[in-house]
Amino acid sequence: MMTAPMKTLVWGEFRHEKKNPKVAEIYPQGIHETIADFLRKESEFDVFTAFLDQPEHGLTEEVLASTDVLLWWGHMAHGEVADEVVARVHRRVLEGMGLIILHSGHYSKIFKTLLGTTCSLKWRESTDKERLWNIAPHHPITAGIGDYFELPVEEMYGEPFGIPTPDELIFISWFTGGEVFRSGATWQRGNGRIFYFRPGHETYPTYHQPEVQRVISNAVHWARPTVCIPDICPNSPPLEPLSHDTEVAERSTEGLR
Amino acid sequence: MMTAPMKTLVWGEFRHEKKNPKVAEIYPQGIHETIADFLRKESEFDVFTAFLDQPEHGLTEEVLASTDVLLWWGHMAHGEVADEVVARVHRRVLEGMGLIILHSGHYSKIFKTLLGTTCSLKWRESTDKERLWNIAPHHPITAGIGDYFELPVEEMYGEPFGIPTPDELIFISWFTGGEVFRSGATWQRGNGRIFYFRPGHETYPTYHQPEVQRVISNAVHWARPTVCIPDICPNSPPLEPLSHDTEVAERSTEGLR
Amino acid sequence: MMTAPMKTLVWGEFRHEKKNPKVAEIYPQGIHETIADFLRKESEFDVFTAFLDQPEHGLTEEVLASTDVLLWWGHMAHGEVADEVVARVHRRVLEGMGLIILHSGHYSKIFKTLLGTTCSLKWRESTDKERLWNIAPHHPITAGIGDYFELPVEEMYGEPFGIPTPDELIFISWFTGGEVFRSGATWQRGNGRIFYFRPGHETYPTYHQPEVQRVISNAVHWARPTVCIPDICPNSPPLEPLSHDTEVAERSTEGLR
Amino acid sequence: MMTAPMKTLVWGEFRHEKKNPKVAEIYPQGIHETIADFLRKESEFDVFTAFLDQPEHGLTEEVLASTDVLLWWGHMAHGEVADEVVARVHRRVLEGMGLIILHSGHYSKIFKTLLGTTCSLKWRESTDKERLWNIAPHHPITAGIGDYFELPVEEMYGEPFGIPTPDELIFISWFTGGEVFRSGATWQRGNGRIFYFRPGHETYPTYHQPEVQRVISNAVHWARPTVCIPDICPNSPPLEPLSHDTEVAERSTEGLR
Repeated sequence: MMTAPMKTLVWGEFRHEKKNPKVAEIYPQGIHETIADFLRKESEFDVFTAFLDQPEHGLTEEVLASTDVLLWWGHMAHGEVADEVVARVHRRVLEGMGLIILHSGHYSKIFKTLLGTTCSLKWRESTDKERLWNIAPHHPITAGIGDYFELPVEEMYGEPFGIPTPDELIFISWFTGGEVFRSGATWQRGNGRIFYFRPGHETYPTYHQPEVQRVISNAVHWARPTVCIPDICPNSPPLEPLSHDTEVAERSTEGLR
Repeated sequence: MMTAPMKTLVWGEFRHEKKNPKVAEIYPQGIHETIADFLRKESEFDVFTAFLDQPEHGLTEEVLASTDVLLWWGHMAHGEVADEVVARVHRRVLEGMGLIILHSGHYSKIFKTLLGTTCSLKWRESTDKERLWNIAPHHPITAGIGDYFELPVEEMYGEPFGIPTPDELIFISWFTGGEVFRSGATWQRGNGRIFYFRPGHETYPTYHQPEVQRVISNAVHWARPTVCIPDICPNSPPLEPLSHDTEVAERSTEGLR
Repeated sequence: MMTAPMKTLVWGEFRHEKKNPKVAEIYPQGIHETIADFLRKESEFDVFTAFLDQPEHGLTEEVLASTDVLLWWGHMAHGEVADEVVARVHRRVLEGMGLIILHSGHYSKIFKTLLGTTCSLKWRESTDKERLWNIAPHHPITAGIGDYFELPVEEMYGEPFGIPTPDELIFISWFTGGEVFRSGATWQRGNGRIFYFRPGHETYPTYHQPEVQRVISNAVHWARPTVCIPDICPNSPPLEPLSHDTEVAERSTEGLR
Repeated sequence: MMTAPMKTLVWGEFRHEKKNPKVAEIYPQGIHETIADFLRKESEFDVFTAFLDQPEHGLTEEVLASTDVLLWWGHMAHGEVADEVVARVHRRVLEGMGLIILHSGHYSKIFKTLLGTTCSLKWRESTDKERLWNIAPHHPITAGIGDYFELPVEEMYGEPFGIPTPDELIFISWFTGGEVFRSGATWQRGNGRIFYFRPGHETYPTYHQPEVQRVISNAVHWARPTVCIPDICPNSPPLEPLSHDTEVAERSTEGLR
């Protein structure tokens, strides 16, 4: 079965990379370009990038209309993302676009808008090792990942994580310092699929690690839209006969949506 | 076990009642006062009311801080509810306050903010009978309700309903005109419990019906807060020894939340 | 991407067809053969059939080992299915095999074993029309199905349906006689996907109807295994250093699983 | 509000305690009696005990009929529990009885019957410390428990844990050796509430620890039955007029449940 290539858009905040030489050393073209690079190895993906300081953050109506799956990395400038653009992305996810939220994106406006909760957590930037346990070995997102994989050094995120109960819990992390975290989880919202994936602090080479790349690539496949259904709230005629009621016509219809 | 009375706040938009004589006839003091009246029969509830045209819609910081469970009826003026007040209610639900959304409140800002989806549906104001089937006979919200109950005439709401999968599906409605609807459903969001209950169009005497009163009263009991936990996102020291890493001090901490 | 054909096994009880001329008229070769016939139109499926009165009900170790997705129709002879065969199917689902349970299969041993609940319901064999509402328009199982479809005459199944909360609710049925039913639902159990689909009483030509065929065909695609993981419960060595404890060796290990 | 005392039955296998002096030293009267002792401090509980080697394992029809919440500890003799008694407990849970499964009870017949999955896991009896993180601070089961609590030495249980996705995830454990585990989880099955709680290996004094006692006591309160509904599968007359169909009478009714 021939299928059209998936328009995959990697969005990066692209600020740490310009300010912190340590980050620039790891991700010389930006985190988003590193992610785009490994996704381009998949022939089925047609990969684009965008970032905060572009007009409309690179997320115009046209760009989003043709995007199948959007990946999101942001951290220090969540507040600079325009509410109008957030509303646009929100609408597209509910219509069917896939969305993959990475690491500190847990505090992005779009993630909080879609989930409706605080999305808060514990955190520590130190020398923790992270071991991600595969809780869902049957899930397409964990294909090729064994029982677990390790990140030699990563920022710690700890529970409680202020999210609604995920539809599917994919990974749970163990940290050297004694914490645990639901580090991979999915939610269906409207017609779109959402995957949150914890790893990826800017001062570590996390996105160069093969297992991380594999999970993200799997997630893009999994998040592929099946439909694009705009929001409607229709006044619907009955499908079966109703009884006659002379009062109906007299009822006010003011305030009908 | 002695327990403190539950501060129960019934919020009504209170506009249809002033504009439409048909509505005023059914609910002379407003829908919110009718609901408050039957809730006052429960000795454990301490019942208050508030409405849109009061200062801050009657939902000041003080009022909300002492509210255990908030009930919400709105329809024609969702857009007039101030975003600041919505954010305040939102925060209180995530801290632990119970919230019961009634009927057309499916399109209220607070419901959409908490669920993150369109909350759209099909609708028809006609002569449908509604029969609500009890899908969860074990649930405290259905105590005293048998297999089903009927509303002789109600507005129709039909699927698909644009909500995240409920934690618990409580009622499914059958309508004469041929539709079905998930008319009772619960969600945990943060530390607060949310119940959506479909019936209650303003031009029908729905809130005078005993089964409807029983369900709402049960739901207030069920939604009682267990905790009040303000949102934090703490930098947390390790609980287990970490390895020494001389580079940690050099890492930038700009942009930390 | 070339993929191996999916081994699809349609299992039928094949008793009503031999005893009741009305059923034989609708399904001359048996319900299972009618289902197999329309599935054979999909080039990706390699379709087989089996039935109760074959040795081991046609469900030998070899047959099941090579089956990707199993479809199950049974009604009057659930009790004749050997417990040993049920255990075999059960194990295969937990390893990864897909399972589609049709209509009266709600009371089959395998469905009750997998779900752990009564699987009871209300029922009536009469002249009800059934209208199945599509609750999950984004789901692969509803591809090509619009808002709803109708079966002109079908047996009624009504709530409460004694099942665990489904992972995904796909269809809700409306019946002329006033009932509703969760008529399409999915569960993940172990590594296998399960879909229950309500329609298909033996005295109606339900499996000849295009929408029913489309849903079942979609479900076979959806239930395709991603893995085959045998059950293990391993004693696992630590991945991190443990403290020394001289008492460990003295502890009894009797009764270890 | 006066409420009747809750009949709480603590069931123990009571074998390790007789065979292993180390276990007998920690639990001289048996694990079940230690658990019963701390539950008896709650005035609302009426606490009884039973064990494997009693006639019918102490779980007669009469005993179960009057039991509100059953706690279950078993390990080395799961296979000796009679299938008939398991079916009896199963039926009572679906009717409404609460069930709390402790530690190695993950492999009990009743837990596997109710969940329908392997319930397998990784394990290691060594010197791990266990830290249980409170994932659900709003939940009645975690009342009085802070962010986490620790068990200085416990058996390790590791993921993947072969269970259906819990309705509510309550605790996640961190182990010194590098594993994580979903160590507190709830499921609704039929009208009964089920809580699985991981800690409690027989060679450690786990059930003497205050936090463990608090969680179990909270869970008994939470699991209190709301109803007792026997299983039925009724032929139901229509609630709305059906069209006349002369063929209905001719349809075979053989095989009706």
